[in-house]
Amino acid sequence: MAGEQSSGTFVRLPGETAVLKNKYGAVVEDIQELGMVPYPSLPGSKRSTNQIEGYQRAEIKIAWPYDNIGADISALMAAVAGNLYELGPMSGIKLLDIEIPDEFMSEYRGPGFGIEGTRKLCQVYDRPIIGTIIKPSVGLTPEETAGQVKILVEAGLDFIKDDELMADPPHSPFTKRVEAIMKVLNDHALKTGRMPMYAFNLSGEIDDMKRRHDLVVKNGGTCVMANINWVGITGLLALSGHSQVPIHGHRNFWGALSRHPLLGMDFVAYQKIFSICGVDQLHTNGIRNKFCESDESVIRSVRACLNPEHGGFRVMPVISSGQWAEQALDTHKAIGNLDLMYLCGGGITAHPGGMDAGVRSIRIAWEEAVRGNSIFDVQDKYSEIRQAIDFYGKNT
Amino acid sequence: MAGEQSSGTFVRLPGETAVLKNKYGAVVEDIQELGMVPYPSLPGSKRSTNQIEGYQRAEIKIAWPYDNIGADISALMAAVAGNLYELGPMSGIKLLDIEIPDEFMSEYRGPGFGIEGTRKLCQVYDRPIIGTIIKPSVGLTPEETAGQVKILVEAGLDFIKDDELMADPPHSPFTKRVEAIMKVLNDHALKTGRMPMYAFNLSGEIDDMKRRHDLVVKNGGTCVMANINWVGITGLLALSGHSQVPIHGHRNFWGALSRHPLLGMDFVAYQKIFSICGVDQLHTNGIRNKFCESDESVIRSVRACLNPEHGGFRVMPVISSGQWAEQALDTHKAIGNLDLMYLCGGGITAHPGGMDAGVRSIRIAWEEAVRGNSIFDVQDKYSEIRQAIDFYGKNT
Repeated sequence: MAGEQSSGTFVRLPGETAVLKNKYGAVVEDIQELGMVPYPSLPGSKRSTNQIEGYQRAEIKIAWPYDNIGADISALMAAVAGNLYELGPMSGIKLLDIEIPDEFMSEYRGPGFGIEGTRKLCQVYDRPIIGTIIKPSVGLTPEETAGQVKILVEAGLDFIKDDELMADPPHSPFTKRVEAIMKVLNDHALKTGRMPMYAFNLSGEIDDMKRRHDLVVKNGGTCVMANINWVGITGLLALSGHSQVPIHGHRNFWGALSRHPLLGMDFVAYQKIFSICGVDQLHTNGIRNKFCESDESVIRSVRACLNPEHGGFRVMPVISSGQWAEQALDTHKAIGNLDLMYLCGGGITAHPGGMDAGVRSIRIAWEEAVRGNSIFDVQDKYSEIRQAIDFYGKNT
Repeated sequence: MAGEQSSGTFVRLPGETAVLKNKYGAVVEDIQELGMVPYPSLPGSKRSTNQIEGYQRAEIKIAWPYDNIGADISALMAAVAGNLYELGPMSGIKLLDIEIPDEFMSEYRGPGFGIEGTRKLCQVYDRPIIGTIIKPSVGLTPEETAGQVKILVEAGLDFIKDDELMADPPHSPFTKRVEAIMKVLNDHALKTGRMPMYAFNLSGEIDDMKRRHDLVVKNGGTCVMANINWVGITGLLALSGHSQVPIHGHRNFWGALSRHPLLGMDFVAYQKIFSICGVDQLHTNGIRNKFCESDESVIRSVRACLNPEHGGFRVMPVISSGQWAEQALDTHKAIGNLDLMYLCGGGITAHPGGMDAGVRSIRIAWEEAVRGNSIFDVQDKYSEIRQAIDFYGKNT
């Protein structure tokens, strides 16, 4: 790995002197052996001749000279997550973490808003920011979407986002959607003194994203959203350099990068990369989610956002997927920090008492979680909680 | 999958009417069952209750209404390769292909140069374009790199590329590298009437990429290179909209996206995405490569570049990794087309007869391959071939 990702090819080369190798070669700093396994983690791996039986697993730490890369995030990625995934003798390979030196970090601004900036714009300080996603994901006209937004903000939501599938489709052009929604939100802010945050999915080409961003800002909007794996590192850096509002980072495709335990990337590394690109809010999944991710992995991801170690910027973790009031206590127990966005799709909008009861059920659940109470402890006290238990308990 | 990627959440929602679902819901068009397997392809997959024994594999075709997405490549990706990788009941999921309608394709220009444009700039028409990579990958100064380039072009190479690890590091700043190399290439072109193509790795932020591109063009360069997974869709579209020379697409990180047979993405889909982003030349690996990819997969990839079906643009396949003269015949037999770039790193530069003998060995191998001869058939006729067999035969 160290050879391939510094000077390597398959034979020794003219020009690859000992001095050069010494100065620019990557170095294996540590190998923690994790034992032998009988099968390779990936099929088709080429066995080296000295593997008599089974496959050796290990956690390996490789160091690159700073001068190989410089303060350049895309060059960093080519080094730490490039061709090495294709090396035959590796029967599984996952990037767990990247220690990034201060010299590199100081060249990047990181999130322009982060946790504090997001809280300030939402005017929510002492509890998680409670949000939802516009559903159905696809098919509503701008007017229908704005109609939903009106109901949602009147129900007391702090935050609403476009679905990641909605960008600028023919049935809901971005401009019309922004204008229709911001009219509702501006009216709401005038009446209540509080502007709910709406994350408009502006993912697309650079000039389109900038134009869309400017339209959001001009209309008084306070957030934009990007599908970070598709906009990519270069696109995000351009967007964050331009943006006057927080960037909500949606990580769809993340499953493909992470789902195999011994292929791809761990969220700890991923968080660093995209925080350097200037993402302010980053999806982490939630505990007992509707996806395949384990609670342990979710908790590690949330912690990585709140306390990145050895490089990377803090970002606001966005908890979502199959969330309703029920997960508040265990989330709080595991994280011990209210700097979260807690997004419930159906967990609010399908509440049998209506959406405002849905919002109240989440707020109550978090207030009680801080006191150490589960929703089951307090179900006799709050009808919103009782209804939620009756409904979601049967549907999840 | 179809539900999650159109209107879905985990419960039925107000507003999700039958009419809307009918108009905007994704539809499962075909399911080809591939049999039951005893183990899931990915660990941790949640079994559905009706899976009594084992796991059902299937090839599934899903259709989205055009209006859900519009002509928008990043929205397309969010739909076909988004959250669905995280669905618990799926114990493995890989995007095999995307059929893209003409209505969508006509909104994208695709590669500005492609095969024909690349050939014209290289002045090579009747055989593969033969190239190499500057090695050692990292550590050479601009002057040392230019010195290597001089030797390589005098040896008769058509094409040279930066290593993907080289962008704009402190020890070889992009500007100085371009100036030093282009001086050599311009001198060479003046003397010989032929300008070798050099792919400068300009990967980075948008403005830097544009500035670097302009510098290459100003100095007479004819190609730029991008690490396509890190520059990303948005970055590449901005670059290709600006570029006056072909874009050489390096796919480092591809292993992470593809190496598991039942996770991530197949190259057939990948080729379409990046050809739409305007990449002109795309890495495909080569047969008997030093990486883990099978020959069968490499051949399918090369064919996908040359003959994309149901959407996507033709791009020039770039064959590389552990290549030397030996693979020419089998590559030709499998592909039957000379529209290739054939890159040999050590396979040229480490040739015991010198680099010019290395280049000749590749040209001869391809001339003979077209006649149906292997290098072993003709080793008595050419010393360059005999030397190559003696040397690489023992080192690979």
